[in-house]
Amino acid sequence: MIIAVDAMGGDLAPAEPVRGALLAHRSLGIDIALVGDPEAIRAELASHGATPSGIEIVPASEVIAMDEAPVRAVRQKKQASINVAMSQMKEGAASAVVSAGNTGAIMASALLKLGRVAGVERPAIGAMAPFTETGILILDVGANADCKPSYLEQFAYMGAVYMETVFGIERPRVGLLNIGEEETKGNELTQEVYARLKQSRLNFVGNIEPDRVHHGPVDVLVSDGFTGNIAVKVTEGVAEFIFGELKTAISSSLRYKLAALVLRPALMQMRSKMDYGEHGGAPLLGVNGVVIVAHGKADAQAMKNAVRLAQKAANSGMLDALRGALESPQSEGHKEAVAANPSSDETRA
Amino acid sequence: MIIAVDAMGGDLAPAEPVRGALLAHRSLGIDIALVGDPEAIRAELASHGATPSGIEIVPASEVIAMDEAPVRAVRQKKQASINVAMSQMKEGAASAVVSAGNTGAIMASALLKLGRVAGVERPAIGAMAPFTETGILILDVGANADCKPSYLEQFAYMGAVYMETVFGIERPRVGLLNIGEEETKGNELTQEVYARLKQSRLNFVGNIEPDRVHHGPVDVLVSDGFTGNIAVKVTEGVAEFIFGELKTAISSSLRYKLAALVLRPALMQMRSKMDYGEHGGAPLLGVNGVVIVAHGKADAQAMKNAVRLAQKAANSGMLDALRGALESPQSEGHKEAVAANPSSDETRA
Repeated sequence: MIIAVDAMGGDLAPAEPVRGALLAHRSLGIDIALVGDPEAIRAELASHGATPSGIEIVPASEVIAMDEAPVRAVRQKKQASINVAMSQMKEGAASAVVSAGNTGAIMASALLKLGRVAGVERPAIGAMAPFTETGILILDVGANADCKPSYLEQFAYMGAVYMETVFGIERPRVGLLNIGEEETKGNELTQEVYARLKQSRLNFVGNIEPDRVHHGPVDVLVSDGFTGNIAVKVTEGVAEFIFGELKTAISSSLRYKLAALVLRPALMQMRSKMDYGEHGGAPLLGVNGVVIVAHGKADAQAMKNAVRLAQKAANSGMLDALRGALESPQSEGHKEAVAANPSSDETRA
Repeated sequence: MIIAVDAMGGDLAPAEPVRGALLAHRSLGIDIALVGDPEAIRAELASHGATPSGIEIVPASEVIAMDEAPVRAVRQKKQASINVAMSQMKEGAASAVVSAGNTGAIMASALLKLGRVAGVERPAIGAMAPFTETGILILDVGANADCKPSYLEQFAYMGAVYMETVFGIERPRVGLLNIGEEETKGNELTQEVYARLKQSRLNFVGNIEPDRVHHGPVDVLVSDGFTGNIAVKVTEGVAEFIFGELKTAISSSLRYKLAALVLRPALMQMRSKMDYGEHGGAPLLGVNGVVIVAHGKADAQAMKNAVRLAQKAANSGMLDALRGALESPQSEGHKEAVAANPSSDETRA
């Protein structure tokens, strides 16, 4: 099995993706195709000693910048590293793609090259909230700012399949991110989604309030992409703010500094528990392939984790299970959605 | 000036509202009308010594529970404490109302008894994010789960007037809570609101990303009530989680416990900085009166802070400024909104 790593994607590319690939190969024995500018990749590899035989280079002559308009860039730059990486998967040369690049471009490239799984109206990006032992998959966290109820119903199925196949959780508990616990709470979207999930074959446990978003009694938390993005980013901002304040408070006196030195291991451990990157990356679900989106600022360690997750997902049978779950009718709502959107598998081979 | 305090509202009523009223009177010299069951209020007052002359009791024979359906309860229980408190303000006997009761009931009662300010389609509840020195007013945080663009434009004006009059901030900086900085980012709602705010007379500084929701460079942060509620509750949940984890980590060894003892003052100060209750309460803006919503679990200290905020708001000329800002046309969008909603001042005297 080979994992295609977009060597040109991310704020720290190509250095960190290349280092991460080496780490993954050396510590986990995963074979990797580094996709991008061969010169740049070779130079990076050379700085880390002899290149192992399990690391190959797949040339791609173009790069999509972090701030480029994704859809246009993906269509115009046919030789962009992310496009070439997706083609590798499409052709069966790679089993999964990992990229820390422009998220919109990863999504657009996956749609263009791989297409959607039949029955999926919109692919979603899931983030793994790392506050619990296994973690909670929150989706969508940004791919779809405006959602119809049927999208969220499909996100729920996709999330459940992911947690079941990749993390071995039986009958994953699915919750709906909402501003109140009761069925009648929320906006029009969440009220409609609640009704659909209640009738679905999923293990739906009801609404989850925002203060339990990271440690509620669920494995999958469903949301529209706007709200999910808000929840994840607010979390990061608050955690960063608190640890920043803690640092300032501690620095204000020698007494505090000495006490903090003693507490340091405990604080470091806590800090890492808040880190969305620890779980390795965000799966892009609903496309015909295994795609893991790493953080734009991912370092080698985070890239290694993302490669490991990609391998795990590719090995898990997740994609076939996803096809099975989404292609078969789940509920009336789902059937209608598919009927209203017969072209949903248009781009599939 | 008399502030009407709903003595029966909140999880800790009547004990904490009564104690809070006494605190506010004794430490700040504010005169207070305690609205509710006279027997219960008198019993509470008696347990704190002789009742000062600046504390009066206004009888109300009914109570709306925290979990009652708000609109129906407000209409059926005409003698509910929150209704009687609003009537006190309507009749000029009180200058403001403070309640820690059922938020929906406070809102419904305010609409029924006081009505909306002309030009306001929907009142909003603002929460004061306490992470910066002055604080940031986030609104709406839950009164309106589904919003039209015109609502958010009005929230922006209401928030700006509030921060200007009550907190003395000149030309308050108004931001829009959104999932990206650029004008084109977000969902349909935020994109439309961005365009409106850009054309408005307000000091609009653009989109604010969720990780800066508490310490971004703004004084007012505008959002639909669903998203605003998510942002505020996620914050509370994350802060609580981190401090909980900190406690667990610290308790795990004697070394840590001793170090934590030294750090305790710094940690306590930080904790209070995260507390939305510290700023005194959430204003209900857009109704014809000054209404401060205290947290359902507000203790005497929080109730005292809410009473102080109510007095400050009542003294500030906020309500007249709000009428001036909302009744005069701000933009084309606003004019359309008012034209489409000619009954917006129907309940006003």
